[in-house]
Amino acid sequence: MFVIVMGVSGSGKTTVGAALAQRLDCSFYDGDDYHPAANVAKMAAGIPLDDNDRAGWLDALAEVIRSGLSRGESGVIACSALKTRYRAVLQAAAPGPDQVRFVYLRGSYETILARMQSRQGHYMKADMLRSQFDALEEPEDAITIDVTLALDAQIRQILSGLGDHSQRAAQPRYALGILGLGVMGRSLAQNFERHGYPVIGYDPAPRLPEDFTVRVTQSLPDLVAALKSPRVLMMMVPAGAAVDNAIASLQPHLQPGDIIVDGGNSFFSDTERRSKELEQDGILFVGMGVSGGESGALWGPSLMPGGSAAAWHHIAPMFEAIAARAEDGAPCVAWMGGGGAGHYVKTVHNGIEYGDMQLIAEIYDLLHRGAGLSNAELAEIFARWNDGELRSYLVEITAHILARSDEETGQSLVDLILDEAAQKGTGKWTAQSALDVGAAVPTLSSAVTSRLLSNMKEERVAAQHVLGSARRFTGDSARLVAAAEQTLYACKVTAYAQGLSLLRMASEDFGWGMNFASIVRTWRAGCIIRAGLLNGIATAFEHKPDLPNLLVDDTFSAAVLEREAAWREVVQTAVALGIPVMSISASLAYFDSYRSARLPANLIQAQRDYFGAHAYRRVDKEGLFHTQWELS
Amino acid sequence: MFVIVMGVSGSGKTTVGAALAQRLDCSFYDGDDYHPAANVAKMAAGIPLDDNDRAGWLDALAEVIRSGLSRGESGVIACSALKTRYRAVLQAAAPGPDQVRFVYLRGSYETILARMQSRQGHYMKADMLRSQFDALEEPEDAITIDVTLALDAQIRQILSGLGDHSQRAAQPRYALGILGLGVMGRSLAQNFERHGYPVIGYDPAPRLPEDFTVRVTQSLPDLVAALKSPRVLMMMVPAGAAVDNAIASLQPHLQPGDIIVDGGNSFFSDTERRSKELEQDGILFVGMGVSGGESGALWGPSLMPGGSAAAWHHIAPMFEAIAARAEDGAPCVAWMGGGGAGHYVKTVHNGIEYGDMQLIAEIYDLLHRGAGLSNAELAEIFARWNDGELRSYLVEITAHILARSDEETGQSLVDLILDEAAQKGTGKWTAQSALDVGAAVPTLSSAVTSRLLSNMKEERVAAQHVLGSARRFTGDSARLVAAAEQTLYACKVTAYAQGLSLLRMASEDFGWGMNFASIVRTWRAGCIIRAGLLNGIATAFEHKPDLPNLLVDDTFSAAVLEREAAWREVVQTAVALGIPVMSISASLAYFDSYRSARLPANLIQAQRDYFGAHAYRRVDKEGLFHTQWELS
Repeated sequence: MFVIVMGVSGSGKTTVGAALAQRLDCSFYDGDDYHPAANVAKMAAGIPLDDNDRAGWLDALAEVIRSGLSRGESGVIACSALKTRYRAVLQAAAPGPDQVRFVYLRGSYETILARMQSRQGHYMKADMLRSQFDALEEPEDAITIDVTLALDAQIRQILSGLGDHSQRAAQPRYALGILGLGVMGRSLAQNFERHGYPVIGYDPAPRLPEDFTVRVTQSLPDLVAALKSPRVLMMMVPAGAAVDNAIASLQPHLQPGDIIVDGGNSFFSDTERRSKELEQDGILFVGMGVSGGESGALWGPSLMPGGSAAAWHHIAPMFEAIAARAEDGAPCVAWMGGGGAGHYVKTVHNGIEYGDMQLIAEIYDLLHRGAGLSNAELAEIFARWNDGELRSYLVEITAHILARSDEETGQSLVDLILDEAAQKGTGKWTAQSALDVGAAVPTLSSAVTSRLLSNMKEERVAAQHVLGSARRFTGDSARLVAAAEQTLYACKVTAYAQGLSLLRMASEDFGWGMNFASIVRTWRAGCIIRAGLLNGIATAFEHKPDLPNLLVDDTFSAAVLEREAAWREVVQTAVALGIPVMSISASLAYFDSYRSARLPANLIQAQRDYFGAHAYRRVDKEGLFHTQWELS
Repeated sequence: MFVIVMGVSGSGKTTVGAALAQRLDCSFYDGDDYHPAANVAKMAAGIPLDDNDRAGWLDALAEVIRSGLSRGESGVIACSALKTRYRAVLQAAAPGPDQVRFVYLRGSYETILARMQSRQGHYMKADMLRSQFDALEEPEDAITIDVTLALDAQIRQILSGLGDHSQRAAQPRYALGILGLGVMGRSLAQNFERHGYPVIGYDPAPRLPEDFTVRVTQSLPDLVAALKSPRVLMMMVPAGAAVDNAIASLQPHLQPGDIIVDGGNSFFSDTERRSKELEQDGILFVGMGVSGGESGALWGPSLMPGGSAAAWHHIAPMFEAIAARAEDGAPCVAWMGGGGAGHYVKTVHNGIEYGDMQLIAEIYDLLHRGAGLSNAELAEIFARWNDGELRSYLVEITAHILARSDEETGQSLVDLILDEAAQKGTGKWTAQSALDVGAAVPTLSSAVTSRLLSNMKEERVAAQHVLGSARRFTGDSARLVAAAEQTLYACKVTAYAQGLSLLRMASEDFGWGMNFASIVRTWRAGCIIRAGLLNGIATAFEHKPDLPNLLVDDTFSAAVLEREAAWREVVQTAVALGIPVMSISASLAYFDSYRSARLPANLIQAQRDYFGAHAYRRVDKEGLFHTQWELS
């Protein structure tokens, strides 16, 4: 928005305009600076300007407005703009009528004359004032301010006038503001605009590619003013303090009923806290998991919103429009529950992602280091698996990766990559939160453990000299590859079983009332763990919403039992060779534990009672029992 | 301590005494209530009492003092005690001079007479006052208070007088106060007294066994007043809010330089916080891990103190006296480091304990459920193992447990115990903290996971019907038993390797400068994880304090490699049978990962770069690289 502060010479346009620009946190332009030299000379000589003189000047100012708006900037211009047709030139520089606003500083000839006589260094002679009043056509639609008021009062009235108007305005404005224009924020903005939702971006220091056409402002008041009510503001800033800071700077500009969406990887209990804090001011908060990386954000992410249900009702259409679509056409977005439910589901999604990646890496290690298959051979094997029951994004990109050569050396690129896997918060949070909730997720947490072991590179290199290395597989490679495919499938099912079991327990603990079929459906496209088998998992929970564990679903239990022998063979082979299969063996131990009606925890209870008098329960009668073990 | 508030009749003894008792939170005794009826009659008739009259009365009051002190109680007695020899009778009732203190309410004859004439219902006639003044021998060593002062001012002066004096006192008092007289607190108290350190216990609602002879008070001021300076107060209360509450109620009674020891299983970061908070008031705080259960506390626990080094210097002798002794006679206690170091070491000790118990349980399950050995046979096997390289407390008690029959049914007792293992905070904390610190502890964390799985009893029973159960071992049992012994040893070494690696990383993160040989030596006796192999582990770290991992120590690497084949055989057997060996296989995967110079984390880094542009490092050159994978 550009504000034109108009009025006769001496009415205070520069002072008021500069103060207003300060308040609006935007640029100030003094119209006088845009006069051609000839005009300045004329005025200094006391010769009034004619309309020809003014045409070049007004065009220059119109260009200021045009280029400012195209950069998404706001501004304040001090400019006499005495006649209706001059103002029309400036107004026409903007695409919409609301984007140029006029403030008229009004005073009588006598008042202004008295002010002018006390001023120094102005090139217009006081005797020209009369000709200005003669030329003046008072505007009807401007915010009109009395020049005799104090500056503070004038600014207050102007802001109020601009604000009032902005609320009354019926013109279509922006559907969504996005704070934070990193790669994820920019991609989402373009995705929304492609689906017909105009976006205004905010970034205090934007570094934007040249082809980024979404409108951007560096002014929070402008951002908020540009949005339809209730305002919808999506934050795409790093998890942690940055989110709290962004909320704190936004909040003074918001009204009850406005909606903030946090689309970052926030820790779910931070989201719970922020929801409650904002609720007190009537601001609705949505914590939304967003998966799919840059390409997902641009072409269709998987979205996991939670928090204010009322807010979600309002914004659902636009997020459904930009979400990925599953093969059946359904958008990959669903309401996860109140408070931090959305971010919790995203965290567990990432935990499963850690598990899935580690399982693939272990299979790769067994077949590459153990069985000696080349990366090229394995690229073909993974590509073939991606056409079968293992069809999934991660298997697909694994095939691409293994096929890739280094441009410089021609060597297989993956062989040149350092084997230290970094980790971000979500994998760790899944493992830690599972312990708090009391859920067993060994496939997921062992994947985090394996990344930690990968980071002990120096120690590992030294240890290999002391402890020896893995043996080479000498059996039937084709048989091992076939068993590996079946093992990967069984382990993936187990990983999902654990992730969903964790969600079930967390949902009970936190009262989220989650719908697991619906959650799984949001993962079918757009996100990193998208996979063919998710259709079947969604179906399993659709048919039996209270299914305690995916492993006891009819279809999946049959599928896993069919692969059980191959699974055991793969673990035994890896154990014999000395190839570590941390997550594959943890998955099998989970399977074997879960199906054991009787586990040896009775011995552990006896030990605890022995040394700590912790007491135990019995299988044959109710109650708590303690034995004086030392008497025996 | 008993305070005698003395003075002539009408000086305000009852009022002042009752208010003082209120402030000191102790009982108030009105001396007049202890007069024989004959004395009361005499006084009512206006006949002065002679010394014979007074003898019975003073004896009764002396008995009040004697029995109160013997119960560890304090009291305030209002009693004229006009003559030096009367006061001597009261003074003699206490074992030490400091335990009876006199407060003298002093006023002139005229002042007191005026006060008396305004009083009602007192049985002594006003004209007896003169005889009291005649009898009065003013005390020299009493806290002397002006009767014309307001009650508040009187109490303030008395408290100040009691406080001043208590600091000057040179008499030997108690070495240690213990707050919380549950089984651990009581056992430690008895242990200290047996070693010549007099203990006073505090419990607001003590429930003590009859044979508990340690002195106990229900008054915090009494507790603190009874201690030598600097006071040493050990808290044996449940971890969490109870510790903060205990500190808050103690603190007003303490002085700079006093020492608080928290002997509970507190979370280490709570201990760090408490240390800092107390430091601001000059109170020294020691967070101390105490292991060994009831019997350890009574006969010699393993102690892991951390926090204020200055405090530890002062209290070390008495804790060294009560600690367990290793076979070489060294006390099992050592300084762990500043802040929360002591409680951190205790937490990791418990994490190792979880691992050790789970490993034993898995071996038991494999040999019992898998190979069909009876509990009686296994009791003999574990007893035999305890005579060999597996010698340890947990193996020893496992043998006892497996040998035990149910008194009622005659069945093997362990078979009747429900197989749901509870868990307290420390196992979980170890697993969670390891993730924060970035240490891999799969043996320890999988033991927590196995307990979580044990708690899904109903689901497990149902799952067995769907997914089938373990097969029976048909091979050579004796060979399997021998392999199991070797496996358990290798896994135990791995569990210690992980726990000590975690401590090394945490010590670096938190700046604790831990000494690992010293830590391991404290575990050699008294605690739950005491084991023969700890001597060797201590030696390993003594010879090489910066040993990165126990697995690369010369002795232990050789020991593990010797057992490697048996270890792999046991895992393969369990995997074939379908007996879950979550921690044994996690241990082996740790071993195989740790000795792999190259792990498949390069593939994970490629995947992360593919979908998230996370960038990777290379093995052949420095820098961060990103590939446009999708072009391939």
